[in-house]
Parts: sequence; structure tokens; C-alpha cells
Amino acid sequence: VTQKLILNATILSIGSELLSGEIADTNAAWLADALLERGILLRHALSCDDQFPQIQDAATFLLERSDLVIVSGGLGPTDDDLTREALAQLFNMPLEMHHGLLDSLKQLFQSRGRTFVKNNERQALIPRGAEVIPNPIGTAAGFMISVEYAGKPRLVAALPGVPKEFKIMLNLGLFKSIEHLLPESTYKRSFFRTFGLPESVIGQRVAAVPAPPEVSVAYRAHFPEVQVKLRYPTNLNSEVTRNIEKYTAKIREAIGADYIFSENSKVPLNEVVHNLLVKSSKTISVAESCTAGGLGAALTELSGSSNFFLGGIQSYSNQIKNKLLGVPQKTLDTYGAVSAECAEQMARGVRKKLGSDIALSITGIAGPEGGTPEKPVGTFYIGFATATENGAYRYFYPQSRDMVRTYSIWCALDILRRYLLELPVVVKVRYDTNQDDSQNGYPKAKSV
Amino acid sequence: VTQKLILNATILSIGSELLSGEIADTNAAWLADALLERGILLRHALSCDDQFPQIQDAATFLLERSDLVIVSGGLGPTDDDLTREALAQLFNMPLEMHHGLLDSLKQLFQSRGRTFVKNNERQALIPRGAEVIPNPIGTAAGFMISVEYAGKPRLVAALPGVPKEFKIMLNLGLFKSIEHLLPESTYKRSFFRTFGLPESVIGQRVAAVPAPPEVSVAYRAHFPEVQVKLRYPTNLNSEVTRNIEKYTAKIREAIGADYIFSENSKVPLNEVVHNLLVKSSKTISVAESCTAGGLGAALTELSGSSNFFLGGIQSYSNQIKNKLLGVPQKTLDTYGAVSAECAEQMARGVRKKLGSDIALSITGIAGPEGGTPEKPVGTFYIGFATATENGAYRYFYPQSRDMVRTYSIWCALDILRRYLLELPVVVKVRYDTNQDDSQNGYPKAKSV
Repeated sequence: VTQKLILNATILSIGSELLSGEIADTNAAWLADALLERGILLRHALSCDDQFPQIQDAATFLLERSDLVIVSGGLGPTDDDLTREALAQLFNMPLEMHHGLLDSLKQLFQSRGRTFVKNNERQALIPRGAEVIPNPIGTAAGFMISVEYAGKPRLVAALPGVPKEFKIMLNLGLFKSIEHLLPESTYKRSFFRTFGLPESVIGQRVAAVPAPPEVSVAYRAHFPEVQVKLRYPTNLNSEVTRNIEKYTAKIREAIGADYIFSENSKVPLNEVVHNLLVKSSKTISVAESCTAGGLGAALTELSGSSNFFLGGIQSYSNQIKNKLLGVPQKTLDTYGAVSAECAEQMARGVRKKLGSDIALSITGIAGPEGGTPEKPVGTFYIGFATATENGAYRYFYPQSRDMVRTYSIWCALDILRRYLLELPVVVKVRYDTNQDDSQNGYPKAKSV
Repeated sequence: VTQKLILNATILSIGSELLSGEIADTNAAWLADALLERGILLRHALSCDDQFPQIQDAATFLLERSDLVIVSGGLGPTDDDLTREALAQLFNMPLEMHHGLLDSLKQLFQSRGRTFVKNNERQALIPRGAEVIPNPIGTAAGFMISVEYAGKPRLVAALPGVPKEFKIMLNLGLFKSIEHLLPESTYKRSFFRTFGLPESVIGQRVAAVPAPPEVSVAYRAHFPEVQVKLRYPTNLNSEVTRNIEKYTAKIREAIGADYIFSENSKVPLNEVVHNLLVKSSKTISVAESCTAGGLGAALTELSGSSNFFLGGIQSYSNQIKNKLLGVPQKTLDTYGAVSAECAEQMARGVRKKLGSDIALSITGIAGPEGGTPEKPVGTFYIGFATATENGAYRYFYPQSRDMVRTYSIWCALDILRRYLLELPVVVKVRYDTNQDDSQNGYPKAKSV
């Protein structure tokens, strides 16, 4: 079979569990991403039941439409795992026992203390002429077949459906084997991860900067962050490359560099804050009302957080705000528990009680009950205290209870990030017509 | 067009974001579930780019293979939303302005204070002869077309891809319109949601009870719970129905009714606990070390939790365990912060300080660092205190940091559930050979 460069691919996901609502097909989304990085377009993701005619019918549809067909699932040891048989028959390549594979399967079973039964031999059957793709972490080996379909050279690769095995075998097995068939002109992607501006404002700011023709720009609102993604070919001359670098710098500035918490990196906001805290050698404590512990949980997601996180007080009831945090009863009576005054007192109180360098507090109305005309659902305040500064910030984010709680935690983390990086704090009081909304889509910071 | 019963369906999900790794197609999994309940089989889920020939090509493939084709996505107002045009052309039904739809679109824009621009008119275009499926929560209306394809009657329904809109329009719009075409012999499903036993043990216990031939049984490990699902036809005679009821009662007993926190209900564990707490009129407080607030956050996910949740202390550092919770320094020195003794003292301390009826505490080693041979990563203790009882339970769950934290929160919620229902508490000390593992796959409860 003549081989040719792979420009596009499709995936066939096999398994009744995909068609009965048991699980969503996450392999397809992951594959799309992995292919794009290599300059290959995913044309279709198709799922079908693990039945003979359906597998063959669906594989044929995809073979007609793509250079590479990746088949995931149906490689287990039981009788309802039919991928091997269906593909072997479709391509007229009878199944053969692969003795090297059989030996390593038996060894794997022995090392795990499991009994190797007759049925397990099925996992060593491979279509004649196929290339084995070893499974370094499980029993289901994959294989790759080169075929000619309707006069065109095609590659078909069968991989197990278990996401962990699928990914490792694709990266370490399949892509290595077909390296010479991957496009030379691959794509590079860069991205900004932002917090604090709505997607529409980010979109306007980026669109105002003319993009070089080689660059495609995409936005993704991945609550509560907004991502901006650039994609461009890698084989560009140095002038175009310089232009793209200039463009990237310009949109960074247009967005506002301080809104970007992560650039070309998968590090999420709480990890950014974690790293800044470790570097600063500062300790922190929290006082949480409406989030009831969520901020503490977010600050301790990574190992090593005991270096900076001392603890906190989940002051859900007013009595605890008063008794444990020292919020004066007069503050609660005059301004209410959801107020800038109370938030500031909560932060000061927990800082004093726990002896941390920094303290953060959250108090708000997450809803759906509890709103008033003056303080509707979605109103929250974040208090902040250090040895030299105290303050509180007001926010308004009228969404579901779950979203308000998550958003307020992100706002608190972002205040911390900005404080540690010596950036201005930006407060969002959406829909508040008393505030200047002109610059950011949101008003400027205001310490209360 | 003659109509006939719908026995099977397919879904075509349109959008480049599905093929670039941006998002996984969750509509397909949800649809499969909704269809199965109505006795309809989902044959294929297929995705394609929002381009004219691809939409038509993919729709044709599905039309050949199913009675009902559901097309999701591509109904927005911008020029790259091509579903309307592609289907209109494929079925030779020219697009027409639907004036009723146009009026309600304009009204919607006005009520939201948004400007209606020319492009928005596109969302009122409907193929001639199609039936409108209104969108009660957004601007993208759907539509349904009856066609004859290769001599067979087919239904094609176009719905927006936004999951919230897709679901509501399917349930309230499409399924209502085609009620007379849905199969009479539908399926009924019942399910148990369990916590506290591994999937393998659940599987063994259920498999030991012979199932009536009409019932199919499926398991789903949906960390940290395990679900058991039964499915059987609705049109059964009374004898078979009684048999199935008897079988259901038997497997409930075989699993152990106390492990089942929810039966045939979507109510998750924390909502079960929420409802029990409200009913009991008891108040609760928490002391959290390794979870740092996650238990408090879980207990307050629903509105109304201020009726029972007073607050808590996130005692991450030992100093705070001592100073704020009153854990004696001697306990910390002798047994360590991760010990039954410390867990019990934490619960007693927070109960006393906050004045609640019940108190729970969590202390453990979530890892990946911090394990020792005596207390490896995954070891945690849950303390419990009321006016009349104090105790602590030991668990061992050697998994990732995130999983240990989540699992320990579930264990604490389950202790609370069992306490409020007066059920025995079950403690899991996996891999601990000193414990009796014979009965549950896990040892019996042991108050330390």
C-alpha cells in the first residue's frame, strides 16, 4: 500500500455505554486537540454499538472521508468485544494469534496475581499484516492496518476505549509509528487565560487589534475564566513570525496584562496563587460566610499548601461572625452581615485570631433565597487584611447559587494574585449604574 | 408524508468546537438517556464541522439509518450558523421568514435591553412546511421536518446546541409534538445510588440474586458513589411485574439497604443529608484539617442550609487545632494530628465552641507528600461529637489527593446520614490486613 501524508482523521467510538447515556465520549474531544497540534483535522466523531454490521458500516463511512480512522473500544476479552473480528473481516485480514503478545499478556496476568483463562487469549489475536500497538498499562493491545480504500491509501488504528490507555497508546504508540506520515506544516497554538472581564469585552478588545492573516483567533468561556486562543502554522518565515510576536504583545496589552493569570500554560488560577504564596513566604487565613469553606478548599488543592495556609473560620451564622471573628454586633445590626463593613471586620478578625500575614473574607447572598432590593442575590463582598491595609470590595454577579459561590472564590483568589504581584484590584459591580462602566465593561476598583 | 412509530434515532452535533477539542459532546449522552426511557434506541452520535456539504453529507448518512434525526447546533444568528440553510436545501424546503417568531424575538431583545440588528432576523427563518419548536429560554428557535427518505418516513428535528436549551426544547417541545409516534412498549428504569462499598462487591452481591429474564442490570462507578441500574419493559403482565418487585427487594437487601442513600431519585448524598438535618431540627458545625473547608462547602450547597449549618473551623495548622479547637498539645505530640484521638478532640472542640448539636471533623493525609509507613497517604480519621457521644473512625483510601479529599467528605456526610437515620456506621480500612474484611469487602464499624 502506498502511503501518503495524513491531513485529516476521524474517530469511531464503539460501545453501547456511549449510546445509553452512561458516559460521554471524552476520547473524541481529547483526540481532536492532540491531532490539531500535529496539523491534522478531525472531520468526524462517530459512535456506534458494539455489533458486527454496525462497526463495519460506520468504519466504511469514515474510511470514505478521512486518511486516518481511529477506532476506540471493543478490544476487551469478552464475547461482546467485536472490534478485532469486525475489522479483520472488513479488510479481509484473518485474525492470527500473536505469540509475542500472548506471552506478555500471560506475564502481565502473573505479575498481577490474576488467573489467565482461555477467553483472555482473544486479546492476543491480531489481523494478519497489522502492526501491534502495545498497551503499557493494560491488557488490551491495539493495532494498525494500512489499507487501500476506493483507490486511496488509508490507515486504520484500533485502540482501547479506556481514556487513560487510549491516550498513552496514541501518544507513545500510534503517533510514533506514523511520524513520517504527519504533516510537516504543523500548527502552533498559544493562549491567554483571563479572569475578571466578560467574554464580550475580551472579544471587543482583541478584535480591535488587526490580526496577521496567518493567525486564527478563538475565544472560549470556560466558567469562570475566559480563554483567548491563537493558532498559526509553524513553518513561517522570520518576518511573519516577528509579526505574530508583535500581534501577541499587542493583544496582551489590549486585554490588559493584569487580567491574564496564565499564558501558554495549563496552570490554573489557584496554582498560580499557590506558587506566588510559596514564593512570598507569607501566610494566609480565611473567614468564609456564603462559601462556607470553599475558599480554604481551593487554596489547599495542591500539596505543600500547609506552607502558607494556616486555616480559617467558616462563619456561616451571625453569632459566629460576632463571637469567633469579633465582628461588632453594631456592625451586623447597622450594615448587615452582607456588607463591606462586615467583610472587612471578618478579615481583620480572622487575621488577628489566626496570626497570619494576609487574611481574606467572603460574605454574600448566593441565593436563590435571601435577596433584597438593596442587596439582590449575587451581591457579595470580599474583605482583605494585612498588617498595613484593610478593605473590602463589592461585587455583583446575579447567577445560580453554585456559580455565585465559585465566582466569589475566584474573585478572592484574584485579589490575592493581584496583591502578591502588586497589581491593581479590579472590582466587578455589574448592572450597578452608579459606577463607571466605561473602561473595562466593569467599574474600577474601589476600596470601601 | 406517512408517519410511523419512532424506534430508533441518531444525533448530528454540529460545530467546529466539537472537533477542535474545545468541548466534549454531552448532549449526545444526555439524549441517549432520555430516548431510552421512551423506548427509543440511539443508534449513532455523529459530529461534523459547521459547513454546508458536511452537514448535508452527515445528515444523509443518519437519515438512511434512523427514524428520527436530531440535529443540534448551528442555529445562532451569525453567518457561520448554517444548519437552517443546509437542511432547507437538502430537503428542498426554502427558508421563509416566520413572522410570529420574528415578533417574539424582537420582544425578547427588548425585554433584555438588547438591540435587535438585521443579523438577528436570521433566527426567524424556518424551512417552508417545518414545525417551529419554540425556545423558552433563548433566541435560537428549533424546527421539525417530516420527510420521506428513500421511501421511508423520517423526522428531522433541529435544536440549538447549548445544553440547557437543547434539553428543555427536547422535553417540552419535540417529545410533546411527537408523542403519538413514540413506542407504546417503553422501558422503565429503576436505580440504587450507593456509597461505602466497592463496585466489585456490589456486583458480586447483586449477581448472587437470580434476575428475571425481563430485567437487565448495569453498574456504574460514578466516583465516589456506585450506581446499580435495572431496566425492563413497561408492558408486562402483573405476575412478571410482581416478580420484578420481589427481585428489586431482594437485591436491595443483598446490597445492604443502609448503603443505599437514594433510590429512583436524582437526590445526591449531600441533599439527602440536608433534608435529614432540616427534618431533625439539629444544628451542625465542622472542624476540617485536610479538607480545609470542603465539608462545609458540601453541607451548604443548597439554599436553606443556614437552618442547620452554624459554621466551622478550618484547622489546617496544628497550632490552630490546639488554640482554636482545644486539642491538647499532648494529644498532638503523642498521637499526631492525623489520629483518632485528634479527630475526636477536634469534633468535641468545635461543637463546644460553636454550640451545635452535632459536630464532625476530618483530619488526614491527602498526599501526595506526608505519608509515613504507619500512616500512609490516604489515611484519614473522622471525628464525631454530640451531647451524648464522641468517637472517631479510621479510613484508608490510597488514591490521588483530590480523590482522598472528596472521599473523606463523603464519608463524613455518610456518617451524618447514618446517625440521623439511626443506622450503623461503616468504616472502610482497605488493605488493612488487621481488620476483618470478610463481610463487606470492608471491615465493620469500629469506634476508636
